[in-house]
Amino acid sequence: DAQCYVEMIDPKAKRDGDFHKFNTRWKTKDCFRCTCSKQTIECCSLTLTPVGYDQEKCESVFDVESCSYQVRGKINPLQRCEVESWVI
Amino acid sequence: DAQCYVEMIDPKAKRDGDFHKFNTRWKTKDCFRCTCSKQTIECCSLTLTPVGYDQEKCESVFDVESCSYQVRGKINPLQRCEVESWVI
Repeated sequence: DAQCYVEMIDPKAKRDGDFHKFNTRWKTKDCFRCTCSKQTIECCSLTLTPVGYDQEKCESVFDVESCSYQVRGKINPLQRCEVESWVI
Repeated sequence: DAQCYVEMIDPKAKRDGDFHKFNTRWKTKDCFRCTCSKQTIECCSLTLTPVGYDQEKCESVFDVESCSYQVRGKINPLQRCEVESWVI
């Protein structure tokens, strides 16, 4: 299940260098929302993936800041593109 | 904590009309990722909110399909706008 994962906490290992209180939630640089208890870290993706759009006329562009894809016209980026579904 | 919420399941009540297997995850129409057990439904928002951008020159536009905001120039929508942070 690519959406979420659970990791056992290795007390010695440091994740992305930040400390987080138990049972709080934070956003990671790779666009996951994580929470942790004494034993585990649980993370779920914050990114929805566009599926089913005209790949000749349109392109999907990922913005790591907002953790989101934008699907827009290749020639005219203002052109909105129809997307069949956005998958978690 | 506006990000996530937990609801006790009222066996008689139907949430958005769909049936979901226990411990599966689904995206709701109002941009939450939910999972359910016999007793509870737990949902977390999929939307990051832009904070700290030039509100005179830029506007944030919500796309319910991709569950994401886009911050762009009011006059020229292709103009990228600096956003201080994206908050879960």
